[in-house]
Formats: sequence, structure tokens, C-alpha cells
Amino acid sequence: MNVTLLAGGVGGARLAHGLDLALGATSGGTPGLTVVVNVGDDVELHGLAISPDIDTVLYTLAGLNDEDRGWGLRGESYATLAALKDLGEDTWFTLGDRDLATHIVRTARLRRGEPLSAVTAHLARAAGVRPRVLPVTDDRLATLVDTPSGRLGFQEYFVGRQHADAVLGLHFDGADAARPAPGVLDALAADLVVLAPSNPFLSIEPLLAVPGVRAALAGARGRRVAVSPIVGGQAIKGPAAQILESLGHEVSALGVARIYADLVDVMVIDERDAALAGPVADLGLTVRVTDTIMGGPPGRERLARELLALA
Amino acid sequence: MNVTLLAGGVGGARLAHGLDLALGATSGGTPGLTVVVNVGDDVELHGLAISPDIDTVLYTLAGLNDEDRGWGLRGESYATLAALKDLGEDTWFTLGDRDLATHIVRTARLRRGEPLSAVTAHLARAAGVRPRVLPVTDDRLATLVDTPSGRLGFQEYFVGRQHADAVLGLHFDGADAARPAPGVLDALAADLVVLAPSNPFLSIEPLLAVPGVRAALAGARGRRVAVSPIVGGQAIKGPAAQILESLGHEVSALGVARIYADLVDVMVIDERDAALAGPVADLGLTVRVTDTIMGGPPGRERLARELLALA
Repeated sequence: MNVTLLAGGVGGARLAHGLDLALGATSGGTPGLTVVVNVGDDVELHGLAISPDIDTVLYTLAGLNDEDRGWGLRGESYATLAALKDLGEDTWFTLGDRDLATHIVRTARLRRGEPLSAVTAHLARAAGVRPRVLPVTDDRLATLVDTPSGRLGFQEYFVGRQHADAVLGLHFDGADAARPAPGVLDALAADLVVLAPSNPFLSIEPLLAVPGVRAALAGARGRRVAVSPIVGGQAIKGPAAQILESLGHEVSALGVARIYADLVDVMVIDERDAALAGPVADLGLTVRVTDTIMGGPPGRERLARELLALA
Repeated sequence: MNVTLLAGGVGGARLAHGLDLALGATSGGTPGLTVVVNVGDDVELHGLAISPDIDTVLYTLAGLNDEDRGWGLRGESYATLAALKDLGEDTWFTLGDRDLATHIVRTARLRRGEPLSAVTAHLARAAGVRPRVLPVTDDRLATLVDTPSGRLGFQEYFVGRQHADAVLGLHFDGADAARPAPGVLDALAADLVVLAPSNPFLSIEPLLAVPGVRAALAGARGRRVAVSPIVGGQAIKGPAAQILESLGHEVSALGVARIYADLVDVMVIDERDAALAGPVADLGLTVRVTDTIMGGPPGRERLARELLALA
């Protein structure tokens, strides 16, 4: 079975890990899993090309991620960052010593002319990652966030200002001219396409903003499933709840289902939101109610198996 | 008093430190010291621009260098290098975590279009270095080493193969088209110009290979002094003795004096080589016999004071 996951950072990475575990066990190591990852969060700092969502997915699939913190590598040190600060660099974005190696290699290869998808494949291979991890595009796509303080770069909004600003709108700079990375559109023809419980606006929307992706998903013949990132009216992680609210959506799994209604066949909502099953079904969607909180690897694999059963 | 030092790596850095200490004490913090540094050893690794001689000079002047090892920073860690190796990078050139910050900042600024001299001034300022440290040129100048195994890049010869190959010749690639960095030619009009006890072929020759530098030194009105890097027929550090021999020079302070005879007024030789004072004087040079082994800061300052007394 071929499975494609559309993913942002932590939630996407955890579900990717679960799918890798579930598929790896059933298919003997040829998972047929493709993870299409958001690049709207990418940022250049200290001259280095940083792709936070791709790295979170790679590190999680490699079992190297910091589970407590949600991002970065386990057991990191920060000697280079301290020295960068001593040299007068603005070090508001935390970069570990081992993490920096990823950015150094990525930057060197991009400057040599390798597309981001090829660089990502190299990093995945080096880390022993089995699934195919694809940036949604090799072209520039930068998420900009409109706030009462003006338009902010994504990492300025998210890390620099700790996503404290109200989000009035989003702009995916470069999206109009971006082309899907090689393999992305084909991957949407999988038997099962899953929209990860990632932020609908910050993680999934930029994927859909790449010309051709939304149409390929809308026309896909496989089973299309979305997992709600909102449980009990709250985001599992990050600012999804605030953004739903400030953009005028209902802060609930139903609000998310309305956003995805034209794109998926099945909406997976948490058992705590069982009361919303009827209203979600009224949108014309099949509803699956389950425990969507993944936590560690066993919970990820369990949710993944329930998704695979939907195909 | 204005003093200019022509320097390579360790020997040049130690004498620069001594001159900074000696001039700082006598002139109250306006040393008027310029260090013109070799860039023929520069190398790009992992996409990062590395200037080993400049960094040795900066780190030594800042009191941050590893005195035991001679290069790099004291108390370094190597987490990023280990991670680079895990990512399949060839890590034959040791790069510490804090040292990497220097290369990251240098690379980012060079890519923004800053000349190496401006980047070096920024790094010197950030490290609290008082003397002016100038790369001899902002243009590309790469030392290539002809050996029985063919032509090698400098760091391949020096670090990769531990300078074990016989040196049959040297080529300073790009030197013909290189221009002296801003301030270099003016610095040669100082009251005292010192050729550091650096390798005459690997450190001083590439400086002189930049069009205009040799002529400016030959025509300089200030006192021009060279310190022999050969003591008792041996190099204080590195392959200077082997290279003198393989290129057909006498392996002694006299052999060095013959190379510099047309460029300097005074040759400083070690007291262990006192017997060579006559033959060196016969070249038309003033000879100063002293203890040239610097060791730590007190020895550096002592030698520097003796040099200042020659002006």
C-alpha cells in the first residue's frame, strides 16, 4: 500500500513516525510512505539555510529528535551558538551544534545547485530514514504572517515573538511561481493520503498553495483522510486555536472539518469530540472517532494503524 | 611608532602578540601595529570559508588560542564535526564548535559581498583585538604545492598528508591578478617592518607574490627586520627545514638570510646560531643575535621589545 502524508512540524513528524512503524512492520521494510513537508517556515540565519519542518520530520523518523521539547536533536550542545553570539550575531533562534551540521551540509549543497529535494534525500539517507521525505517545492515559498504589528516573517512570528501576535492573515510569498518538487503530485495518487494533525494554516495551507497540489488532492482517487489538530477546543501544540479564532473559524474539530471538507473523504476526530461526529458527518464527510493524542511511538503506531485501516 | 608585521600562522601570531603587548604597554593602547597575514592557506570546506592563518593571528591576539596545539581555540568541543561526519562529510580537517562560528560568520559576510579585509576587521573587533589585522589581499590566492605525487592544494599537503611530501615547488594560484588589500601597501611604510619567523615559502612568499608588495617592501624607508624561523638547523615548528632543503637552500639561519637579503636591513638570528653572524653580515645585513624562541607571552614580549629597539 502506498501512503502519502502531508505534514508540517511536530504533529506531522509524529504521525510520519507512526506510519513508518506500522507500514514497516506489515510490509517488511518497503513502506511506500511519502511525507510531503511544508517549507514555508524555512529561514536563512547566519547565512545557513534552515528547514525546520523537514528537519523535525527527518530527526523524528531517525529517532534522534528531542521528544520533550518537540524540536531539535536529543542531547544537543550549544557551543557554536554561544560563539556566534560572542561574534555579535543575533542568536534568537536556537541552533544546536549537531543540528548546525545539517544546516551546513544543506547550505553547501544548495549553493552547489542541488535542489532542496535532492539535499533532503541525501540527509534522509545519511540518517537511515526509510520513508521518502519530500519538500513540497524546490522553489522559494515563504510564509508571511499579517498581524496588528504588521507583516512578519514566519520565524520572527513563531520563534522570535513566540506566536503571541494575533494572526490577521497569511501570505505565502513565492507560492504562485513555485512548482511542486519532483514526486509530489505523483505521491498524491497514493492509496491513502493523510493530512497530518498539523496547523491547517501554517503547515497545510502552504502545501496547498503550491500550484497543482490542491487540484491533485481534490482529484485524488485514493482515500483522503484528515486528522484534526484541535481536540476539546484546544490545539495539541502551537497556535492553531488562536489562529482559527482570529481568522473567524470555529475553534473545534468541526471548524477544521469545514476547512478540509472539499479536500478529504474522512475526518478523524478525537473521542473527546465525539459529540461533533454528527455535525462533521453533515458536511458530507465520513467520521472516525478515536484517540488522536499520539504521545510516544506506541501511540503513533496505534493511530497510524487506524488510518491505514481506512484505506 | 608604527610597526607592521608580515605573518603566517603560529610564529607570526606569537610575535604579533608580543608586539601588541610591548606596544600596548608603551603607547597606552594605541599600538599602531598592523599584521599583514597570509591567505594562501585558505580553504573552503563544507561550504565554509576558512582562513587558518588569519584565525590563528586573531585567536592568539585575543588570548583565546590553544597554546599547546598551536592552532584553534582553547577548550574546544567537536559536536558539529562529529555530526558532519555522520552526514557523510569528509572530516579530515578538524574544526571545533566555537571555531566553526568564525567560519560561519566569515562565509555569510563574504557571500553578502563584504571583502575579506572588512570581515576580518569585524571578527577582530568582536574578539577585542587591538592591532589591525589585514589579509594581504581580498582576492583569491591559493598556495599549491608541487610534490613527487603531483600538485596538491595547501591544506591537502599540510593537514591531509601531514606535510610528509617533498616540496619540489610552490605555485601561488591567483597571485598575478591579486591586488593588495586596502591598507597593505601603506602599512609597509611603517617605522619598522618585521618578517615574522614564519615559513619563508609557505607564509612569507605568498605575501610577496601579491603584485606591489615585494616592491613596496624593497623600497620601504622604515627599518626592515627578518627573524629566522630556523634555529640550530631546525624549524621551530612545521616543515620549513625540509622545504629549504628540497628547494636547494642551506638549512640554517644563513640560508634564510640569503633568501631575505634583498628585502631587509636586519637579520635576527638565535644565540644558538651565533657562529653564523659573520656569514650573515657578509650578505650586507646588520645581524642581531638573541634568544628567538618565544614560548609564552613573556618571551614574545621580550623578543618584540628587542625588535622595537632596532627601529
